[in-house]
Amino acid sequence: MEYASMNQAQLQTEYELVAKKFEDLKGKNLKLDMSRGKPGKEQLDLVSDMLTVLAKPEDCVQDGLDVRNYGELTGLPSAKKLFAEILGCQPEECFIGGNASLNLMYDTISKAYTHGLLHSEKPWAKLDTVKFLCPSPGYDRHFKVSQSFGMELITIDMTETGPDMDAVEAAVKDPAVKGMWCVPKYSNPDGIIYSPETIDRIARLKPAAPDFLLMWDNAYCIHEFEGDYLPFPDMLSICREAGNPDMVFEFASTSKVTFPGAGVSVMASSVENIKYMTGLIGIQTISADKINQLRHVRYLKDKAHTLELMKKHAAVLAPKFRTVLDALDKEIAPLGIASWKRPKGGYFVSLNTADGLAKRTLALCKEAGVVMTSAGATYPYGKDPRDRNIRIAPSLPPVAELETAIDVFCVCLRLAALEKLMGK
Amino acid sequence: MEYASMNQAQLQTEYELVAKKFEDLKGKNLKLDMSRGKPGKEQLDLVSDMLTVLAKPEDCVQDGLDVRNYGELTGLPSAKKLFAEILGCQPEECFIGGNASLNLMYDTISKAYTHGLLHSEKPWAKLDTVKFLCPSPGYDRHFKVSQSFGMELITIDMTETGPDMDAVEAAVKDPAVKGMWCVPKYSNPDGIIYSPETIDRIARLKPAAPDFLLMWDNAYCIHEFEGDYLPFPDMLSICREAGNPDMVFEFASTSKVTFPGAGVSVMASSVENIKYMTGLIGIQTISADKINQLRHVRYLKDKAHTLELMKKHAAVLAPKFRTVLDALDKEIAPLGIASWKRPKGGYFVSLNTADGLAKRTLALCKEAGVVMTSAGATYPYGKDPRDRNIRIAPSLPPVAELETAIDVFCVCLRLAALEKLMGK
Repeated sequence: MEYASMNQAQLQTEYELVAKKFEDLKGKNLKLDMSRGKPGKEQLDLVSDMLTVLAKPEDCVQDGLDVRNYGELTGLPSAKKLFAEILGCQPEECFIGGNASLNLMYDTISKAYTHGLLHSEKPWAKLDTVKFLCPSPGYDRHFKVSQSFGMELITIDMTETGPDMDAVEAAVKDPAVKGMWCVPKYSNPDGIIYSPETIDRIARLKPAAPDFLLMWDNAYCIHEFEGDYLPFPDMLSICREAGNPDMVFEFASTSKVTFPGAGVSVMASSVENIKYMTGLIGIQTISADKINQLRHVRYLKDKAHTLELMKKHAAVLAPKFRTVLDALDKEIAPLGIASWKRPKGGYFVSLNTADGLAKRTLALCKEAGVVMTSAGATYPYGKDPRDRNIRIAPSLPPVAELETAIDVFCVCLRLAALEKLMGK
Repeated sequence: MEYASMNQAQLQTEYELVAKKFEDLKGKNLKLDMSRGKPGKEQLDLVSDMLTVLAKPEDCVQDGLDVRNYGELTGLPSAKKLFAEILGCQPEECFIGGNASLNLMYDTISKAYTHGLLHSEKPWAKLDTVKFLCPSPGYDRHFKVSQSFGMELITIDMTETGPDMDAVEAAVKDPAVKGMWCVPKYSNPDGIIYSPETIDRIARLKPAAPDFLLMWDNAYCIHEFEGDYLPFPDMLSICREAGNPDMVFEFASTSKVTFPGAGVSVMASSVENIKYMTGLIGIQTISADKINQLRHVRYLKDKAHTLELMKKHAAVLAPKFRTVLDALDKEIAPLGIASWKRPKGGYFVSLNTADGLAKRTLALCKEAGVVMTSAGATYPYGKDPRDRNIRIAPSLPPVAELETAIDVFCVCLRLAALEKLMGK
């Protein structure tokens, strides 16, 4: 029975039941974590052979280069080839970075501020106002990068097919709007795949800012956990064909393919952009870690072989997502107090409570020893206008722990909903 | 006989002899490189066992942390301990970075521009003029970082005991002077060790800028190639005792200890500075590569064990430096056309020609197939006011190649000197 249809007596009975459950769970002194998209140990163990794939000096020579020494600022040719195949772009459009694509993203924006981008009239630091479009719910770390530089964050609603493009097209008429964050495949946290029409409209944008920066974070480009690999179009070609060749910077990494703390990242953009950025990055570093690039090349081999590995990750992840979704279906669906997405890839389940329940639900979770991404984190400035979006990250805990964690979550959500309905 | 004492006929005879040698060398179609402080293959091979020091999942746990996963922004505690012991500072004063200390240095300055440092009144990007002190000859990459941000570079002469401190003390009275580059031990390229008095005067500076940034690049902190390890004072304590606890950021790396392209870097500063910078870096990345940090911790173990490894590097490097110095002593010293330093550590031999010969000498070297660091590179804006400083980097070529390379260099220097004396 839906909570909204219950009378006061029914609510009171339910409240007593749920409050009792909550107290019981609290008594267990749990310490569970569903806060971040962190792979679990079983996933880390999948790629142990990569640790020793380079064992001897002679293993460290590739493309005629000794990868142990200085040089090759833009990365190993073989690493560019691997990433280009995965992303569907060209090797010469790839710049291979260190262990974190977030770092490449941050640096791109930082350089826009200190030096300007290829088509900037001046460095953004010289501008009074810089605005950035933030499709929401979205990735908190993206928004925090923008916020850290003092940008004005503009919330754009996410729809089932990607960002609300009417709103985006209207917003980019403002020359102070300098860019947009996108996670186009299995968006964080909704797991939405941008539709071909959305992608096309993004590529055809006519921003007033000549240096509009499309931050295309393809974090989950090969990260299906259910069903087959879903091919996804190359945004670099699409932007080029739409007459916006230098608008897009695409990012990806192996953080959720090999090791989250020790993967390899890539930035892909037009040859002109890569040339321009390489000129700036050449002042900052001599190159990223090429031994680790070569470990990845030797271990992952090519796209087909990498997709086989992703199937193994999927086999670990699928039961975890199923645990979360099954519990929600069973415990929450009948009550009419929340709705959620059923993603086939990515790292999150995005759940919307009835308005005004997210903060309270997560405060209760915390009380019961379950850490979740903070309420509001998926919105600019950490402020969810309807206080309803919750990002559930099922990847880290083993299934047994996850069962408990999601059980706690369901109880906390029910309790929060009851408190509200009962005016407590 | 010194060239300056020769009469025209003697000069002509010598010129014909040297020009003939030059043509002979050119005919050999050499391709030799003494341009950068790049370790040679024999050095890279010294540390091959580090490649497989972490081979299994259970090897990857340290300090209770699985280093394969996300987290630990400031670096592994054990890596901080190792670097703190090497630098003589405290573990909590260390931030462990990726594979390049240059990247940490660049980012520190970049953040001064975009966000400001701990004691900045505003981000440097908001200032009309930022000046930076550049003890010269110095490291071209340092100067290029400053130049890239549009700073005004102020040349400070290097003396036998470090930067000319009278000039430094006068310069820092200008509030637009925001910092200084230093390579305090085996300075690049002179190989000079700052004297205790110089260090003390630097620590006691009273800069007008509240956010004066002492860039203390301790790149060669354990890099003796002749004689025993030379203890060097901890600049963090000295600055703290002098009442300037937050003035200094120290940098170091294992680029010339383990792998130049895949080492580990460190930034050391006051706890307050590290806390402030960590707040900013936490927006930029989740952590540097901790697997590689742990490889270093397991392989290098501690300072004493690391110094043993440095002895092995010294055994490879010493003969290379000797080859260069012997050739200069034999071929150039009697002619009175250049002087040079005899460093006991670091990666360079710094040579001053008679005024106005550096560019021409290096152009001739290039013609004969020997690549050297560009003339002028060791001065701000790449302009050596007396066109005389040449940085010789003997580390990369095997001794046999180096003998040829330095032979070519000596011939080119003689030819350049003769051309000048003869008004050609």
